[in-house]
Amino acid sequence: MSPTLTQQTLGNELHTEVTRFYAAQMQLLDRRAAVEWADTFTEDGVFQANGLPEPSRGREAIAAGALRAGQALEQAGLVHRHWLGMVTVDEQPDGTVTARSYALVLQIPLGGEAKIHRSTVCQDVLVRAEDGTLLVLERTVTRDDLG
Amino acid sequence: MSPTLTQQTLGNELHTEVTRFYAAQMQLLDRRAAVEWADTFTEDGVFQANGLPEPSRGREAIAAGALRAGQALEQAGLVHRHWLGMVTVDEQPDGTVTARSYALVLQIPLGGEAKIHRSTVCQDVLVRAEDGTLLVLERTVTRDDLG
Amino acid sequence: MSPTLTQQTLGNELHTEVTRFYAAQMQLLDRRAAVEWADTFTEDGVFQANGLPEPSRGREAIAAGALRAGQALEQAGLVHRHWLGMVTVDEQPDGTVTARSYALVLQIPLGGEAKIHRSTVCQDVLVRAEDGTLLVLERTVTRDDLG
Repeated sequence: MSPTLTQQTLGNELHTEVTRFYAAQMQLLDRRAAVEWADTFTEDGVFQANGLPEPSRGREAIAAGALRAGQALEQAGLVHRHWLGMVTVDEQPDGTVTARSYALVLQIPLGGEAKIHRSTVCQDVLVRAEDGTLLVLERTVTRDDLG
Repeated sequence: MSPTLTQQTLGNELHTEVTRFYAAQMQLLDRRAAVEWADTFTEDGVFQANGLPEPSRGREAIAAGALRAGQALEQAGLVHRHWLGMVTVDEQPDGTVTARSYALVLQIPLGGEAKIHRSTVCQDVLVRAEDGTLLVLERTVTRDDLG
Repeated sequence: MSPTLTQQTLGNELHTEVTRFYAAQMQLLDRRAAVEWADTFTEDGVFQANGLPEPSRGREAIAAGALRAGQALEQAGLVHRHWLGMVTVDEQPDGTVTARSYALVLQIPLGGEAKIHRSTVCQDVLVRAEDGTLLVLERTVTRDDLG
């Protein structure tokens, strides 16, 4: 019997692709590769969070935000690890992909004990670059502790 | 060369399908959609746990349990996030699918710090609805702290 | 249109396969199946960690290390759960597969509260056994708290 790409299979493919995108993206953030991190957003991408005073708009602002955050961690002797999980993915009629996931920030002090720094919900609108790879058009991060 | 759906590929498909099922199911539970959560079980589905006095049998009981738990969290100003991970999946000769995973319950108080509320092992017997989607026939949750 | 196994699809397949390998492997470790755990390494596999005085070389040494660790936990009344996540996978020109992931060790005392025992980065070189299954040729685990 010849294989067919059913709806289920296509959904699985997209889910795995988004999972891989998130893994690579979070590794960039946590190793403080601020520019490469920003390049996973569209040129005009938006990063907004209920824990931030205002959204970061565009790669330059997103890179600058990551750079500042990384430097603050460096000075404080802290490592952050971002875990995204429980990802649901939906293809929209307009061709964009929406994803909702849980995102944890683990914080590890040098010489100290790891703890959960933040528990959040991450909602993304993803689009494709010309070469087909995924990019974040808009990310909204909602901290669970801020209700 | 024409692609073939090998055993490995079929196993990957099923694993991703179960992963997606769990993500959607846990998001329903955590957003306190008690009835929709119960609908991810079979009509006669069973939820049992070594942390519960007795099993919940059937969708009505499962929904009622989720509703009570959600109301208690609401009143206490707590958010729960269920993470399932490290999932192994096996197709059984009788057509059912068994899955074993680790399940964490994270607890986040409004205005407070997130912590691990529970670490458990989740063992499921999954079956397919008439439309092919997965449903839980029987779930057994074992808290690690109760030995 | 006939389906084709594109680069993206092949990458997804390999990523899911590694994810499944890790889930099964960690379940073996956490249920203290020391010999079966060691059998997920090559005969001459190496396990090294910045938290260990020296690498374990070969299945016998790896099994012995797991056995000792399991006995120490047993006597202390502790359960460990290993979570691997945020996995990136790359196929190398020499046919090996490299994977980088985050690995958490959760620790749950009988009758007590779960906590994060360790946050680490896990870097693997994976190869295939004659039957095609994945094995660890070399694993390097780096604790985040040791800088």
